Amino acid sequence: MEYQGALHGVRVLDLTRVLAGPFCTMMLADMGAEVIKIEVPKKGDDSRQFGPFVNGESSYYMNLNRNKKGITLNLKGRGKEIFLEMVKKADIVVENYRPGTMEKLGLGYEDLKKVNPRLIYGCVSGFGHYGPYKDRPGYDIIGQAMSGLMSTTGWPGGEPTRTGTAMADVLAGLSVTIGILAALRYRDVTGIGQKVDVALVDSAVASLEIINQIYLVEGRIPQRIGNRYESTYPYDSFRAKDGSLVIGAANDKLWQKVCELMGDPDLAFRPEFDKNYKRVQNHEEVKKLVEAWTMTKTVDELVDALLAAGVPAAPINTIDKVVNDPHIAGAREMFIEIDHPKAGRMKIAGTHIKMSDTKPCVRTPAPLLGQHNDEVYRDLLGLSADEIAALKEQEII
Amino acid sequence: MEYQGALHGVRVLDLTRVLAGPFCTMMLADMGAEVIKIEVPKKGDDSRQFGPFVNGESSYYMNLNRNKKGITLNLKGRGKEIFLEMVKKADIVVENYRPGTMEKLGLGYEDLKKVNPRLIYGCVSGFGHYGPYKDRPGYDIIGQAMSGLMSTTGWPGGEPTRTGTAMADVLAGLSVTIGILAALRYRDVTGIGQKVDVALVDSAVASLEIINQIYLVEGRIPQRIGNRYESTYPYDSFRAKDGSLVIGAANDKLWQKVCELMGDPDLAFRPEFDKNYKRVQNHEEVKKLVEAWTMTKTVDELVDALLAAGVPAAPINTIDKVVNDPHIAGAREMFIEIDHPKAGRMKIAGTHIKMSDTKPCVRTPAPLLGQHNDEVYRDLLGLSADEIAALKEQEII
Repeated sequence: MEYQGALHGVRVLDLTRVLAGPFCTMMLADMGAEVIKIEVPKKGDDSRQFGPFVNGESSYYMNLNRNKKGITLNLKGRGKEIFLEMVKKADIVVENYRPGTMEKLGLGYEDLKKVNPRLIYGCVSGFGHYGPYKDRPGYDIIGQAMSGLMSTTGWPGGEPTRTGTAMADVLAGLSVTIGILAALRYRDVTGIGQKVDVALVDSAVASLEIINQIYLVEGRIPQRIGNRYESTYPYDSFRAKDGSLVIGAANDKLWQKVCELMGDPDLAFRPEFDKNYKRVQNHEEVKKLVEAWTMTKTVDELVDALLAAGVPAAPINTIDKVVNDPHIAGAREMFIEIDHPKAGRMKIAGTHIKMSDTKPCVRTPAPLLGQHNDEVYRDLLGLSADEIAALKEQEII
Repeated sequence: MEYQGALHGVRVLDLTRVLAGPFCTMMLADMGAEVIKIEVPKKGDDSRQFGPFVNGESSYYMNLNRNKKGITLNLKGRGKEIFLEMVKKADIVVENYRPGTMEKLGLGYEDLKKVNPRLIYGCVSGFGHYGPYKDRPGYDIIGQAMSGLMSTTGWPGGEPTRTGTAMADVLAGLSVTIGILAALRYRDVTGIGQKVDVALVDSAVASLEIINQIYLVEGRIPQRIGNRYESTYPYDSFRAKDGSLVIGAANDKLWQKVCELMGDPDLAFRPEFDKNYKRVQNHEEVKKLVEAWTMTKTVDELVDALLAAGVPAAPINTIDKVVNDPHIAGAREMFIEIDHPKAGRMKIAGTHIKMSDTKPCVRTPAPLLGQHNDEVYRDLLGLSADEIAALKEQEII
C-alpha cells in the first residue's frame, strides 16, 4: 500500500532550484505531497553540479530532492501550454526565480490564477516580489548581510560573521512552507488560492526580532558579543582540555551549582558574582574563573558532571560527532540511509518534524533528470507514447 | 468587520513561554488563528521579565505575543478540569515545557487525545520527546552547540561561534508551525489529530544539511571558514573605507565584471584566477586584491557600482540600518507601529510571510496578564461572572 503522509493528495509543481525552494518542497514531499520537480531539459537544477559527489551524482541535489518526481520541460512555446495544463491539475506551484522571471514567461501568478483560481503560488527570492530592491539579485550571503544577522554574529573587535550554513536560504524555505500550508487551509475552506511571497532578507530579519528590539527601544546598536547572551551569565562557551562546551547557568541557583562542581561553593556568593546582573557586568572575570576549571577536564567529563548536577550543558559538536550521535542520528533519525540507482547506498538527512500519526519519511531517492517524464506526462496529462517521444525529439521535455 | 486571516476559525491553546513556542503561535495568530495564551496566575510568561522595557512592559514579550488573547490558569486541580474543557473546543495545543511536564500534570498528548481526538498537539523542546537525551534541559545555546552549527560558524583558527540571534529557537519555532499546519490539513481531511514533536537540536541539524553531506560523503569534518563559502570565490565579505560589504561573484562572468570595476580587466584572465576552482584555491590572494580596491571606497559607492554592473552585492547592515531601510522597514513592512495600553506607541516586528489574499497583520497588542480572562471564560466556557470571580479569589485563574 502506498504511504499516506499528512499531505497525501496534495500536488505540487516544483520549479525551484538549489536550496531555499527545494528545501520547502522537500518538506512538503517528506510529509506526503506529490511533488513534481520540473527541470530544464538536458541541464537540470544547477545544484546537480554541486559537490560533494557520489558516483558522479550530487549529494547536495540528492539530499534536497528525495521523494520528488522529476520531469523536464522547457517553459516556452509548446512547453508553456503543457505547464498550464499541469497547473490546472495542481494545488501548489513553488518557484525561486528572480522576481519578474515568471511574468516574462507569461506564467506569473496572475496568469496562473486565470487557469486555476484555487492555485497556491509560493515564491522565494532575495528581496521579495515588491519593494524598491525587488530586482536585486539575492543569494544567501546577501540575505545574511542585509538583514543585520552578520552584524550581530562574531566576536568583539572582530569582523561581522556569517552563519556556517546557508541560513537565510533555510529560514526562507521554512517560512514559505508555513505560508503555503496556511494558504492551503484557506483554499480548502474558501476555494480561493493566493500568492505567498517570502524573501531571504525578510526571513533573516524575522529571526532577529529580540535583537531588533534592543535598537528599537533603547536606541543601542547591538554588537557582536561572541558566544555569551545579553541578559544572563555564565551562559556561554568555555574551553576544555580537548575541545569546547557550552554551559547555560541561566539563574543564581544554577550558578551556585556550577561553583559547587568547581569545588568553590563560596565563590557563588561573592558580592561581585552573587546576582545574575552582576555576573553579566563582570562576565569577563566569571569566564576566566570558570574556564580555569573547565581547562583541567575533558568535554565529556564536564558535560556529564554538569548534567548530573542539573546544569544545562552540551559539547560543541563537530559534524562527525553529530552524524554519529546516538540521540541525533539514532533515536531521532536525523540521518538515514537510502538506495540511489546511481549513487548506491548513502546517508542523507532525515526529517526534523516528527509527527505521531503520519510520520514524515524518505520513500524514494531524488530523481534522475527526467526520470518521471513518461509517467507524469502519461498519467497526469494523458499524452500518448508517440506524443511524449515527439516532445523529447523537439527538446521540449 | 473582523479581519479574516488564512487561519480564521482555527483555535489555539498556547501554553508556550519565552521564544521558540511563542514564535510559532505568533505566526499562527498573525495569520488569523484565535490564539489563547495561557499563563501562570500572578507571574505569567518568564519573558515578561526580559528587557528591553517600555514603561515597565517587556518589548520581548510584546513583540512575540501580539494578536494573542491572554488568560491565566493554574493547570492543577480545578484548573486542570477547566483546561480540559477548553481542549474540547480547540483545534491546536502548543507547549514548550521540558518533555514529561505535561504528562506529570495528566495533560500529555495521550490524555488530551481522549477528550479531543481531533486535537493537534505541537511541542518544542531541546532534544524532542523521545530518545536518550530527552530529559536534558535544552536552551538555544545547547541547540546551537549540539547540532554542529557553532562548530562551522566563525573564523579559521578562531573559536566556534554562535549565531547572533537565538537561531535554534527560531528554527524550531518555524518547524513546529509547519508540522502543525500539515497536521491540520490531515485532520481536516480525516478527522484525526496527532502530536507534532520538534526539537531545537534536530531543527538546527536540519539547517546544516549541505554541510553534513561534506562529512557523510567525503569523511572531511567541515571547518570554520569565515565568510567565504566552500565552492565559489569571490563570494565573501570585504572591508571598505567605512564598514564592510559582501560580494557574490558566483561565476567567471561576474568575476570579470568585478575586475572591470577594479580597473584591471586583465586580472580576471590571469591563469591563477581565470576559473572559479582556481579562485577558490587562491582565495586568500583574491581577497587581498579585491580588498585593496574596496578599502579605497565607501560601502555605498561599492554596492551601487557592483549592482549597476549586475554583480550581487550588499552592505553588511547594522541593526540601525535595517530598522530604517526603505525596502525592509518601508515597502516590506518588517517593522510596524502598534499602540499598547501601557507601553504606548511602539515599533515591533512585522510578519515576514506575505500573502496576497489574506495578508498577515498585527491587529492587537500583546495582552496584559489575564486581560482576556472574563471574555474567554465567559464566551468559550460559559462561566458566569460569579464563577469567574470565585476562580480569581481561589487563585485558579
